[in-house]
Amino acid sequence: MSLARIERLQRALAASGFDAMALTPGSSLTYLTGLHFHLMERPTLLLISTGAQPALILAELEVGKARGAGLPLQLFPFGDNPALWGQPFEQSAQALGLQGKRIGVEAAKMRFLELRYLENAAPGARFEAADDALGSLRMQKDAEEVAAMRQAVQIAQNALLATLPSIHPGVTEREVASELYLQLLKAGSETEAPFMPIVASGPNSANPHAVPTERKLQPGDLLVIDWGARYAGYCSDLTRTFAIGKVDEELRRIAEITARANAAGRAASQPEIAAGEVDQAARAVIDAAGYGAQFFHRTGHGLGLEEHEPPYIFGENKLILAPGMTYTVEPGIYLEGKGGVRIEDNVVITASGRETLSDLPRELITLA
Amino acid sequence: MSLARIERLQRALAASGFDAMALTPGSSLTYLTGLHFHLMERPTLLLISTGAQPALILAELEVGKARGAGLPLQLFPFGDNPALWGQPFEQSAQALGLQGKRIGVEAAKMRFLELRYLENAAPGARFEAADDALGSLRMQKDAEEVAAMRQAVQIAQNALLATLPSIHPGVTEREVASELYLQLLKAGSETEAPFMPIVASGPNSANPHAVPTERKLQPGDLLVIDWGARYAGYCSDLTRTFAIGKVDEELRRIAEITARANAAGRAASQPEIAAGEVDQAARAVIDAAGYGAQFFHRTGHGLGLEEHEPPYIFGENKLILAPGMTYTVEPGIYLEGKGGVRIEDNVVITASGRETLSDLPRELITLA
Repeated sequence: MSLARIERLQRALAASGFDAMALTPGSSLTYLTGLHFHLMERPTLLLISTGAQPALILAELEVGKARGAGLPLQLFPFGDNPALWGQPFEQSAQALGLQGKRIGVEAAKMRFLELRYLENAAPGARFEAADDALGSLRMQKDAEEVAAMRQAVQIAQNALLATLPSIHPGVTEREVASELYLQLLKAGSETEAPFMPIVASGPNSANPHAVPTERKLQPGDLLVIDWGARYAGYCSDLTRTFAIGKVDEELRRIAEITARANAAGRAASQPEIAAGEVDQAARAVIDAAGYGAQFFHRTGHGLGLEEHEPPYIFGENKLILAPGMTYTVEPGIYLEGKGGVRIEDNVVITASGRETLSDLPRELITLA
Repeated sequence: MSLARIERLQRALAASGFDAMALTPGSSLTYLTGLHFHLMERPTLLLISTGAQPALILAELEVGKARGAGLPLQLFPFGDNPALWGQPFEQSAQALGLQGKRIGVEAAKMRFLELRYLENAAPGARFEAADDALGSLRMQKDAEEVAAMRQAVQIAQNALLATLPSIHPGVTEREVASELYLQLLKAGSETEAPFMPIVASGPNSANPHAVPTERKLQPGDLLVIDWGARYAGYCSDLTRTFAIGKVDEELRRIAEITARANAAGRAASQPEIAAGEVDQAARAVIDAAGYGAQFFHRTGHGLGLEEHEPPYIFGENKLILAPGMTYTVEPGIYLEGKGGVRIEDNVVITASGRETLSDLPRELITLA
């Protein structure tokens, strides 16, 4: 399977005018080879050229793992002395004939460390972002990948349900986040969960990227919980908002508007429309209700081996949706100093429309 | 405190001939500002120049968090449309006068994404690794940092002790790893633990970077457990090796040799020697016992906000140890196809020698 993916990438690179692609450890390297490497102070680089066997530059102590991949990889190992780390780059650039070539990289992944070694080893080579060539492969999930994401959603939902009984006034955001994390592991999430749960209460809920604090939940709070699980490498990423006791009228109103915006974004999702139309559909509901300025982030992002990957769901995105694409729909309304609401689901585009993988209730539920 | 750290970095940069430093999200940015940002598809960059107020380029939705740092930062926010992300780079490069300047980066952190934006925004600027300028600050921990590491070690030790009763023949490596992870959280580790525990049994224990598998523990196995906790941002990183039932004579012998090598590496640790001498002291024990070729990694690495940071403990490292430096001592012997042993402790250099922060027994203990 991985060899087929490498061959698809080689074709996609050739079609985009690239001679090769250089990949640091991360989800794309795992997608292509099945290999996991930690991103560390030592360089690690997978080189895929359109005309030769792929090359892998790696620390000697990782060689056994790399051989276990069962792929036809040329290995270029190095030892612990950084003074000698340039050699395997020179050897592999030579073996693949990279001098003067056009080499693609993942812009948000390629590091200065590997880039400089490779620039020195391949004089005259030009390096350019090739995210689209790789993204076009990874974006369209096959049935096995969608099944893993469905399972990741189920695990996340079960973990939240197991956490709800421990949420009441007086517990801190950090306590809720820790309990939810424990429940994610018990429910079957891999230990490398996609991200630490966000648990944001009261005024903190007006910050979309809040980090859990020692703040204690209080009656009248909105409580935003944004969490996810990982299964077979694939992520889920959900958000629900709760009321702690009775909350004021405007907070109830923004919860109701956000639920309608979420439904509109999901309903708009279908093949052959632009990703931006999903954003526009969700945003139109919030704009019409007069809270446009309080919804200041995009409607969603793709989801898969990474918690954020293409397609990105922002208004200007002209990328055409196609079956197998998976992303979040997560509109929100944030009233600074007062409270915020976000409701996030995970959808997959199907031949005829979309399937929403998550099904926890979206209306404002009161916990107390 | 963070402002003092920024000022120390400005002095260290000037002393090394740098005009500025550019930092992506990660532990150094957190060390300097107290701010946590996730590394995502959106660019984020902290610019510290020797002559101006630091600048932070960030997504609009992170502005609230950045203001909360209470530092005199110039903020350059951008919205969701990637077509406009170049603008804050141009504005900040202008504000700090970066054109034609010598700009330091962290080689293993700086990404192609931010690098290209900044190269375009600051024509003529040269970018070079400035890891030493920053490393010299971060390497020498103050009393508060060492106290956090001591606590991270205690949490890790308590978690392992709570996990041991569930280890017996028939359980899988993954089950042990999950239980240990749960116990780490219960014992007080932050949910972003430094790394996923390594649990490697039987022949898998001969792979220093093994990933837990579905293999069931069997009598006669060696079992390597490599795990750590995080407390107040700081890491611990320990390894112990156990016998499952009765193991053969050679496996017992390599366990005994490795324990002596660990003790020798710790005993050699003191201020004003080269980091390489610690490696040499541990390695000499294993070489003398005839297993030099089976100890094929360095003796250790620094530890702090990151699970791997300077000082690196390899034979050729001439860096002089000084009080406050913290690192692992983790010799191992790996017999391919048969089994391996590693014993890892965390030490801090003191004025008169070293303190070993970890104190779990190091001899081969039989579980069954």
